[in-house]
Amino acid sequence: MSEIAKTPDPPYYAVIFSSHRTEGDNGYTEMAERMVELASEQPGFLGIESARENLGITVSYWASLEAISNWKKNAEHRAAQRLGHRQWYARFRVRVAKVERDYGI
Amino acid sequence: MSEIAKTPDPPYYAVIFSSHRTEGDNGYTEMAERMVELASEQPGFLGIESARENLGITVSYWASLEAISNWKKNAEHRAAQRLGHRQWYARFRVRVAKVERDYGI
Repeated sequence: MSEIAKTPDPPYYAVIFSSHRTEGDNGYTEMAERMVELASEQPGFLGIESARENLGITVSYWASLEAISNWKKNAEHRAAQRLGHRQWYARFRVRVAKVERDYGI
Repeated sequence: MSEIAKTPDPPYYAVIFSSHRTEGDNGYTEMAERMVELASEQPGFLGIESARENLGITVSYWASLEAISNWKKNAEHRAAQRLGHRQWYARFRVRVAKVERDYGI
């Protein structure tokens, strides 16, 4: 159950991953849970938020572009990315963004 | 039903709004739909994506910080923000971020 991420004061980075799934699970749920676990072990990981209705949105937060680049190149993550392309996602868009300010209650 | 936003080539801006709702609707759904409609009429609006499970995530995309600032100050939007603080949101965080690159399928 996703919660609002406890991120530090900006600046930091966000990776906004918006996707439409294909039909069926096909091992997706297990892999998605593993990827959250694995991401959270990476240097520079700051938090992750996720929700899905028809559209799925996952936002992960990172200390630097280098941390994002290293995570993208992680071998186990790359294997998951390939399966994502082939099987799990009908469409997706990844946006890498620098968080400049934040506020809330 | 939210779809992946058709945004232009970066750079552009994202406002990531992550929230936990209070119990009950209390006029929230109608106002949320109105705010999407109103936002989409604003200068510099590029698109919006939304999903909610336990956590809700709405990402709106904008051409500039000025466009975001003007939207934040919109009178009808300000009235909705006040109700959001008082009634609809147990917690929320707004993050304003500059999208530096994007890719997808």
